[in-house]
Amino acid sequence: MTSPVRFPANLKPLEPQGSFRLEQERKRASFDAKKLSEIIYGPEYLARQEKLLAILQSDPILGDKSHRFYSGRDVRFQKGLAAAKRLAELSNEHQWGPEEWRMVDQLFDEAGPFRLHRAMFIPTLQNQGTEEQKRLFMEPAQRYEIIGCYAQTELGHGSNIQGLETTATYDIGSKSFVLHSPTLTASKWWIGGLGVAATHAIIMARLIINGQDYGPHPFVVQIRDLQDHKPLPGVTVGDIGPKFGLNTIDNGFVVFDHVRIPHIAMLAKYSRVDPDSGRYIKPPNSKLAYGTMVYVRANIVLESRYVLARAATVAIRYSAVRAQGNPSKGVETPVLDYSMQQYRLLPIVAQAYACHFTGQAMHRLYHENQTRMNTGDFSALVELHATSSGLKSLTTTLALAAIEECRRACGGHGYSLFSGLGQFYQDYLPKVTWEGDNYLLTQQTTRFLLKMFRSTAAGSGTDQPTNFSAGYIREYLNHPSATCAIESASDISLDALLAAFKFRAAYLVEQAVHAIDKEKRSWNDMLVDIYRISRAHCQLVMLSNFDTSVAIFSRLALLFGLATLEQELADFLTIGYLSAAQAKLIRQQTLVTIKQLRPDAVALVDAFAIPEFALQSALGDAEGRVYERLIAMAEREPLNKHNVAEGYNSYIRPLVHAGKHNWKRGGDGRARL
Amino acid sequence: MTSPVRFPANLKPLEPQGSFRLEQERKRASFDAKKLSEIIYGPEYLARQEKLLAILQSDPILGDKSHRFYSGRDVRFQKGLAAAKRLAELSNEHQWGPEEWRMVDQLFDEAGPFRLHRAMFIPTLQNQGTEEQKRLFMEPAQRYEIIGCYAQTELGHGSNIQGLETTATYDIGSKSFVLHSPTLTASKWWIGGLGVAATHAIIMARLIINGQDYGPHPFVVQIRDLQDHKPLPGVTVGDIGPKFGLNTIDNGFVVFDHVRIPHIAMLAKYSRVDPDSGRYIKPPNSKLAYGTMVYVRANIVLESRYVLARAATVAIRYSAVRAQGNPSKGVETPVLDYSMQQYRLLPIVAQAYACHFTGQAMHRLYHENQTRMNTGDFSALVELHATSSGLKSLTTTLALAAIEECRRACGGHGYSLFSGLGQFYQDYLPKVTWEGDNYLLTQQTTRFLLKMFRSTAAGSGTDQPTNFSAGYIREYLNHPSATCAIESASDISLDALLAAFKFRAAYLVEQAVHAIDKEKRSWNDMLVDIYRISRAHCQLVMLSNFDTSVAIFSRLALLFGLATLEQELADFLTIGYLSAAQAKLIRQQTLVTIKQLRPDAVALVDAFAIPEFALQSALGDAEGRVYERLIAMAEREPLNKHNVAEGYNSYIRPLVHAGKHNWKRGGDGRARL
Repeated sequence: MTSPVRFPANLKPLEPQGSFRLEQERKRASFDAKKLSEIIYGPEYLARQEKLLAILQSDPILGDKSHRFYSGRDVRFQKGLAAAKRLAELSNEHQWGPEEWRMVDQLFDEAGPFRLHRAMFIPTLQNQGTEEQKRLFMEPAQRYEIIGCYAQTELGHGSNIQGLETTATYDIGSKSFVLHSPTLTASKWWIGGLGVAATHAIIMARLIINGQDYGPHPFVVQIRDLQDHKPLPGVTVGDIGPKFGLNTIDNGFVVFDHVRIPHIAMLAKYSRVDPDSGRYIKPPNSKLAYGTMVYVRANIVLESRYVLARAATVAIRYSAVRAQGNPSKGVETPVLDYSMQQYRLLPIVAQAYACHFTGQAMHRLYHENQTRMNTGDFSALVELHATSSGLKSLTTTLALAAIEECRRACGGHGYSLFSGLGQFYQDYLPKVTWEGDNYLLTQQTTRFLLKMFRSTAAGSGTDQPTNFSAGYIREYLNHPSATCAIESASDISLDALLAAFKFRAAYLVEQAVHAIDKEKRSWNDMLVDIYRISRAHCQLVMLSNFDTSVAIFSRLALLFGLATLEQELADFLTIGYLSAAQAKLIRQQTLVTIKQLRPDAVALVDAFAIPEFALQSALGDAEGRVYERLIAMAEREPLNKHNVAEGYNSYIRPLVHAGKHNWKRGGDGRARL
Repeated sequence: MTSPVRFPANLKPLEPQGSFRLEQERKRASFDAKKLSEIIYGPEYLARQEKLLAILQSDPILGDKSHRFYSGRDVRFQKGLAAAKRLAELSNEHQWGPEEWRMVDQLFDEAGPFRLHRAMFIPTLQNQGTEEQKRLFMEPAQRYEIIGCYAQTELGHGSNIQGLETTATYDIGSKSFVLHSPTLTASKWWIGGLGVAATHAIIMARLIINGQDYGPHPFVVQIRDLQDHKPLPGVTVGDIGPKFGLNTIDNGFVVFDHVRIPHIAMLAKYSRVDPDSGRYIKPPNSKLAYGTMVYVRANIVLESRYVLARAATVAIRYSAVRAQGNPSKGVETPVLDYSMQQYRLLPIVAQAYACHFTGQAMHRLYHENQTRMNTGDFSALVELHATSSGLKSLTTTLALAAIEECRRACGGHGYSLFSGLGQFYQDYLPKVTWEGDNYLLTQQTTRFLLKMFRSTAAGSGTDQPTNFSAGYIREYLNHPSATCAIESASDISLDALLAAFKFRAAYLVEQAVHAIDKEKRSWNDMLVDIYRISRAHCQLVMLSNFDTSVAIFSRLALLFGLATLEQELADFLTIGYLSAAQAKLIRQQTLVTIKQLRPDAVALVDAFAIPEFALQSALGDAEGRVYERLIAMAEREPLNKHNVAEGYNSYIRPLVHAGKHNWKRGGDGRARL
């Protein structure tokens, strides 16, 4: 007879306990965290969070997330499907819009098999379908009567849409398209929702008419029988297998063997094929699609804010609870008092705030620009789109690095899944590759900046008053030999830092223009510089957007500027803008600013108001009950169901009992020595 | 009736295929990869690898690793136990020594429940047990008649041994110790092998005699009954739950409630307790333990070599196979031709070689030092130990970053577990925290360097001719205003780079000595500098150790120096050793050197001779069959066992069929539109 493993009751952690330590931290803060929350989010957001949280937490299917720690893909996928169905029902019941869904996705924190149906299939039909196509496909999709996905990437072709191999050949006789995968590498691959769930897919395929290739176009294709879910004839479909994370999504593949689909299948709001003549009708040149991209990326930046804030919440709270030293000598220090720990964590808090303000600014600019575009003014669009590309790259890179840095800053326990940072990292990872690879994307940003530099330098006036980049490029052109004016610590201000970031970005752009236009260096040879330029521009944008209307924000802005500058010090020194002495001053002042922010560390993460339901972290427990929760979570480990675990009889006993005769067993079970 | 998902036969990838591309790469190389392998490893290592590989691959239990991709912890742990038992049998059969085991661990690439028994329990008994204790515990342990683990860390106390709470109180009357966990945070935690497997543990507990605390000492304690594996009275033991990786290990916890253990339980080779008088007998001051640490760390550096090499093998081969462009226009380029991809990957190859040479050098120094110590000469030990601390920190940090960089450089497919880099990253991760936290460790290195600076500056002669650091500190003191002499690209040599790294390390040490001794800054305030100094010293050590006896090594040494210098450019500029113009030159030359190495990229990773059994990577396939292998692996995904997956009836059908009446089904299963 075995019994489950249970920790002895009544054992308490060493004094002072985590709850006391966190309480002390909160008393030290220079501001009220609750009030700061309202400044950051506004009351509406917080009320919405509370409401949705109540729905999710009390739901019998969605309310308990703890199984996620212990289950493999098999169990998690089934529970993920159940959750997806339940969320679909709740969405209908409560009429969730995009704002609600974004928050639900954050709170529930698990992407399921219907995620892409909602996030890609329906929006693509909405944006690219005709009215008839919307009626035929979008309306049943909204009722989940069909389940869709969006299939662009192929086994041999990822972000590069021009490389796609799948063809849709128009057959004028039958007024239908023949969809075909000519090679193995043409298989659609990585398609979220396709592996198990989807009945339909939007397939990006090269449109071929009379032997002419018109490039990739979107087609709505039924994949599985609505009656029994079996793959339709000519369709091979399945799951691509396990991934580093997101295993509750069924990323799938599909191969087509001359599958015939009707004329209505081609999404025809923009380009279309005349059914009778087979004539290809080009899309009107629409810039509106770029506006949507800016909107999507503004949300990615706000999501980075959330990622940074969540990781920092865990690491900072735990660093306040975790103490090192010699307790028998009564000298234990919370590790948050170590300067290295502060140096690792506080800049991440500043980055979270920076992402918040920049995400907000992008939303504001998006709306201003939409209004402008409605009056035919497209002047702001190109820069907004270019900057949004670089910001997606920069902020997702920052956020991902922050999760891992915070995890490591939690020491050994950071490696336990109960830290809440392991799965979080694994699931966020693809953001640096998807929705535009973080390296490739920077080419769009830099290409724009180079153009802007050329036109500003030529005084050709294609730059607009709304252009932020033209502004700082002009400043630079007026003072191309400027150097930093800082002489002592007291000279270091946000303005001084902004001037430095402006000069550096413009200087790097000028160098690249020179290398390409004068030295005739190839684009490929410039890729490292191109990446660096986009980053420089976007760091400047983030610093510029920092709200300084509240004292604590000003200090965070300074830290964001200083820590970013320190990290990029080589640039500022190489271009001769900073002297070695100034660089030393910057390094010192970074540490000084960090020290000033130290007493507010816990309150600064509290202000992000991330509920425990989202954190799922023993280390980040808001009340500091770190050790109690680690134990409670360990007790649920399946291996602890019996105090002699499965496998003993097969794999351990035969070894140990081979030597049984060498030991005498005492009455208490102990071997007699 | 459903059937398993099977890919259509006979589909081939787009031409030119991966096998052709890799063949071309291999033809371009400037050297023979096989010959380079022999230069790197020597024939003995390669022969041993072949022999062990044959044993493992042909073994029915160990030979097939593919289940690892698809299974959760439950299945993997049971298979891990089976493998551990099988490896124990093979070890007995083939009489594996430490060299064989190190290679088996690398090839099998899965740490199991007996890993710490072998790696910590037995060696600790060997090093710290008396002859009687070895007979009682070590000998049965070697026969796996008892299974042990090593229990130091506690729930509330990680790397900080002084913080341990567990007590072992000597009871002179019964000549026994009473082992006790006074609080919750005193629970032993993270102990590998303890959760399920161990019958015994070496417990680090504070020795208490007559109320006096003598600090942590090691005790051998029986945990479970040898008869039925049940926890002994007073012992609560279990598994700590799931981790980010290494889930085939049963990291466990144990709590003691006044458990009595005999006097023989305290490992007594060094300090001991006189059984009758209860007198504590101090250990002789032995420096020999430091020698062992150097040996262990030399192996960690060589392991970093392996980690870097393995990650680079996958990313470089796949980057040669993966092409981007427009295949319909016939312009597809392997992504390895993009300068950014080269910039991301080739420095990693150079780092792998650097770790190889430095690992070898450490082994050589270890043996020289052992000989020296046998003649009573301890002069080299302190520096060797200090440097080994910093090198552990630097090389494991580099290696971990390299796995993730290589994974991302594989684009979307890097996120598939079939890349072979996901689990690899997860399992290697704790290396930056365990065996000395990578931040804490650098304090040892820098503390030594500061001392060495003080004595060298004072001319007090405590530095020895064998001291590498004293040498470069003396050089610096003779030329404290030296600057870099590079004027053009042709001046950039390994010697010039070495001079730069020496100057920087010595300069940073001098600054820190000044800050501490003159400005009276606290150690805590200096932690960021301390980390930087250790890194600077160890980068110099790695560059110094680079073998340049072969042309390709020289070029790699140059790249390692340049890329490292570029990454640390801020330091070199801030200290005034490099000018802005020289910094630009360094950046340019880094790219030039990378370009020169490009044709050898595939051969350089081939030369590491990492077998497919270890890689387990579709992307790193030696023959370039990337896409064929991705498909074969996807077909084994459990969700593909049926072409209508489990969960359809419960979670998808009810939604889809709710709208069934809206669709008419055609004879081919397609909904009629």
